[in-house]
Amino acid sequence: MRASQYLISTLKEAPSDAEVTSQKLMLRAGMIRKVAAGIYSYMPIGLRSIRKVEAIIREEMNRAGAMELTMPMVQPAELWDETGRWDKMGPEMLRFKDRHERDFALQPTSEEVVTDIARQELKSYRQLPKNFYQIQTKFRDERRPRFGVMRGREFTMKDAYSFDRNEEAAGRSYDAMYAAYTRIFDRLGLEYRAVAADTGAIGGDRSHEFQVIADTGEDAIVYCPDSDYAANIELAEAVSLLASRAPASQALEKTPTPGKATCEDVAALLGVPLETTVKSLVLATDDVDEAGHPNGSTVWLLLVRGDHALNEVKVGKLDPFKAGFRFATEAEIVEHFGCKPGYLGPIGLKQPVKVIADRTVANMADFICGANAEDFHLTGANWGRDLPEPDLVADIRDVVEGNPSPDGKGVLAIQRGIEVGHVFYLGTKYSAAMNATFLDEDGRPKHFEMGCYGIGVTRILGAAIEQNNDERGILWPTAIAPFEVVICPVGWSKSDEVRERATALYESLRATGIDVILDDRNERPGVMFADWELIGVPHRVVIGDRGLKEGVAEYQARTDAEAVKVPVDQLEPLIRERLAA
Amino acid sequence: MRASQYLISTLKEAPSDAEVTSQKLMLRAGMIRKVAAGIYSYMPIGLRSIRKVEAIIREEMNRAGAMELTMPMVQPAELWDETGRWDKMGPEMLRFKDRHERDFALQPTSEEVVTDIARQELKSYRQLPKNFYQIQTKFRDERRPRFGVMRGREFTMKDAYSFDRNEEAAGRSYDAMYAAYTRIFDRLGLEYRAVAADTGAIGGDRSHEFQVIADTGEDAIVYCPDSDYAANIELAEAVSLLASRAPASQALEKTPTPGKATCEDVAALLGVPLETTVKSLVLATDDVDEAGHPNGSTVWLLLVRGDHALNEVKVGKLDPFKAGFRFATEAEIVEHFGCKPGYLGPIGLKQPVKVIADRTVANMADFICGANAEDFHLTGANWGRDLPEPDLVADIRDVVEGNPSPDGKGVLAIQRGIEVGHVFYLGTKYSAAMNATFLDEDGRPKHFEMGCYGIGVTRILGAAIEQNNDERGILWPTAIAPFEVVICPVGWSKSDEVRERATALYESLRATGIDVILDDRNERPGVMFADWELIGVPHRVVIGDRGLKEGVAEYQARTDAEAVKVPVDQLEPLIRERLAA
Repeated sequence: MRASQYLISTLKEAPSDAEVTSQKLMLRAGMIRKVAAGIYSYMPIGLRSIRKVEAIIREEMNRAGAMELTMPMVQPAELWDETGRWDKMGPEMLRFKDRHERDFALQPTSEEVVTDIARQELKSYRQLPKNFYQIQTKFRDERRPRFGVMRGREFTMKDAYSFDRNEEAAGRSYDAMYAAYTRIFDRLGLEYRAVAADTGAIGGDRSHEFQVIADTGEDAIVYCPDSDYAANIELAEAVSLLASRAPASQALEKTPTPGKATCEDVAALLGVPLETTVKSLVLATDDVDEAGHPNGSTVWLLLVRGDHALNEVKVGKLDPFKAGFRFATEAEIVEHFGCKPGYLGPIGLKQPVKVIADRTVANMADFICGANAEDFHLTGANWGRDLPEPDLVADIRDVVEGNPSPDGKGVLAIQRGIEVGHVFYLGTKYSAAMNATFLDEDGRPKHFEMGCYGIGVTRILGAAIEQNNDERGILWPTAIAPFEVVICPVGWSKSDEVRERATALYESLRATGIDVILDDRNERPGVMFADWELIGVPHRVVIGDRGLKEGVAEYQARTDAEAVKVPVDQLEPLIRERLAA
Repeated sequence: MRASQYLISTLKEAPSDAEVTSQKLMLRAGMIRKVAAGIYSYMPIGLRSIRKVEAIIREEMNRAGAMELTMPMVQPAELWDETGRWDKMGPEMLRFKDRHERDFALQPTSEEVVTDIARQELKSYRQLPKNFYQIQTKFRDERRPRFGVMRGREFTMKDAYSFDRNEEAAGRSYDAMYAAYTRIFDRLGLEYRAVAADTGAIGGDRSHEFQVIADTGEDAIVYCPDSDYAANIELAEAVSLLASRAPASQALEKTPTPGKATCEDVAALLGVPLETTVKSLVLATDDVDEAGHPNGSTVWLLLVRGDHALNEVKVGKLDPFKAGFRFATEAEIVEHFGCKPGYLGPIGLKQPVKVIADRTVANMADFICGANAEDFHLTGANWGRDLPEPDLVADIRDVVEGNPSPDGKGVLAIQRGIEVGHVFYLGTKYSAAMNATFLDEDGRPKHFEMGCYGIGVTRILGAAIEQNNDERGILWPTAIAPFEVVICPVGWSKSDEVRERATALYESLRATGIDVILDDRNERPGVMFADWELIGVPHRVVIGDRGLKEGVAEYQARTDAEAVKVPVDQLEPLIRERLAA
């Protein structure tokens, strides 16, 4: 590619509404242009990187035996009705009517369409396993689209769906996809981590997120540096920090704590460690009678240590909360505790509530909690003596850095990550809802065991940049850089030798399949360097008259601190060597 | 590819709602599956052909210096308002509101977005010419989607847009695209014709359709076998079939023609050639006063020879009709002619009308026309003697086969075609509407001269099949066949030698980049042959025990009448030779 015939369209400043680094750099580098909130044009330079990402994904999906197809963007309500998702999906699913007033949606994913394909095309166990994927535009009408390609409305996603005879075979499909994802993210050249994730109502342990490590990531991912344990914060198991409960050593006392409504404030006032306090959170579940009609509500008191945070995903998986829960209203709290929030606790209740203690709280002795009286806390509280044992002890908190790893092999660390892939075992959720069956070896119809596997193609660009950038711009991994090599001739229009040398190198690299761009725009070196550092081309060669007199040119990798002088005839071998590294 | 690991999903019968051959064959071959009216999933086998078409288009577009980008599917009303197309586009443009009640549309094309990109990114004449293209999903909410991928609602289109300094440079961009399209359709292996097409309000002669020749095509294309004249029926010039007007030889007579309201019936009744009759068509234009308010209407009588058809596109280009026209109402006709349709003519009008005669009609003598009296026609009518000379003589009819070519080099032939590509010079229509300018060499802002260039990617599959099929199925050109070669082993599970020979040939062809599928499904020969003939793989090898005993296998091209026996060691060279042909 010659730059003069291409669109190099860099900006000194990012538009003022750009919020995060990757968004600013993609806009400044001319990779994307905003068309509407969360909707972008992918400019030629940006599309080059996208196509490279897509090609790697496609190769590895094909290698894993998956088959590419394309399902439509515009999908009819009828199919989504079969699984109930037409009603269940929130306003993120953009719905509209066609000219004949029929209901359609823009696909956010394609479980319904692919399950419909399976029930039409896959009749026999002999045809299984099958895995269908597409790489294609998706739409999610985010309430607040932001961060450029990180949370856009229109984006490119690779979504795959596997169909198997039974759970064991589905596990093999899942493992094959996990392995393919590992190869994909390895080839993309990104630092990433596969972490166990919540399986929701499906259950089991087959859900993994692929997270690109970046300090700016939205997700907290938990891992053990001394083992292969890794999970996202929603799932990571928090063990008890106290092996057993110590005997009570203090008397229960009602202590004035005027205006101190948080554990932090109480601990500071009393001059005790935050770890001696217990936080009270009040949830409610709405009950129904046998006919399914509303039938009052139940109030629950959940206790975590003062320095811990309640994990709502874990709470949602406890039996009493599986059908849904909410935070209690102030009226419900006053009714049961006789006190407003801030001074609540498990002792001296007005109406009985069910008490659920985090594992650590269940082993605490002499703890501090609210007194159910405004401006008062209790100190020296002890299970058994001052209050009954909890109704339930469970892991209901987020892990924090330094917690023991649940596999017993060390302590946990926490990183920030950007989710770019997800592999998920679906079981028969969709095949049962849509009655998608095949005839098994015994001649009986069975529902397909399914899995789904997504990769955010456009999001990968954002994640790669969040992970790899400096004050001058993007630091692309070579595999997904818009160009692998840029040749910057200094004095393009003035020096025949510069022009000839630069062009010869360009032609020679190009002829062997290296993705090289020749900057023949006749710009000053400063302009060229700033552009290509911003765009993030991994390898740069500068050819100028002064160097040529000594028979040298300059080579610098985008990640190198300084350029090195290289004899002109050594340039090509050097570039090949660096590209192969 | 091994068939056992792929989805071969053929149907004996096409669904009953399939109307045309290509649609039936694509459904039967398992290339597409219907999701909703005009909306299809592209199944693995279908997508293979699409990807091959896309790759050829991409290569030739890049070779021609165009740059690929991707503009969004979902486009905001604001941009479409700038050109007035938000209101002007019919219900084919699917419009909807997002969750914040903002107006959006699914892109039918992208002139507005690309012109917006140009006005942001292209500041100087030094950056011109530029040509941006995308290959991507489009949506048109057809009132009556049909014919499978031929007139679907969701489809893939390559759309390109060129930006130039002036009309001359725009002409070069146009010519470059015309040449690229020629290379593309040559490489696709289709019989096609580039025909001049109407330029509408833009004017000039820079509009060409690329039509795939097929008897089932919707379009009539006109060409001269003895020259390079080719145009679609809307544009093809119809010259006068009478070099000059003969002197009058008959008297004007009012002849009873009871119940004979068509030229055909009148000619039959009177026992004269249809070519002696004249057909009267009555149009109306609605006038406006200087303030633009409705101000009555004008009635026009258009005359074509009895065996000719009025060409409304040509009519629309005549000065009086440029702002629009309609067929006259019966009330208007009765008011002006004193008679109902069927017996109208230019002689003996009740109210004056403007008369426009086709070129041939203007040279007719002793002609027959309606008498403006029910059940009567006039014979022996002559211009000048019986009625004034026409107000306007113009080409207002369709050409018919055998008409002289307008270039004087022979007579015209007519073929049916399927439009798969269109190159079109836009001038400054969009750049002026959106005030998209660049600074020219003289330092002044100028509107870009634009062109647009479309190819119906998915439609090409339909057109290729309409052109190339037989009673057994599809006859793919090799370049876009889902597979180039199929190997059918007879007795896969029974004979080690068959299995080994077939697998060895498969591996050997595959290793050198030939797109081969090995049918290892262990099906009977009849099933295999029927599947692959339906799917249309261009080259087939059959390897069986009986042949191997003599050291031979069978080779048959899909277009060959019979298979030939080939020594096993000659198979590979033969296939290579046939693929290279």
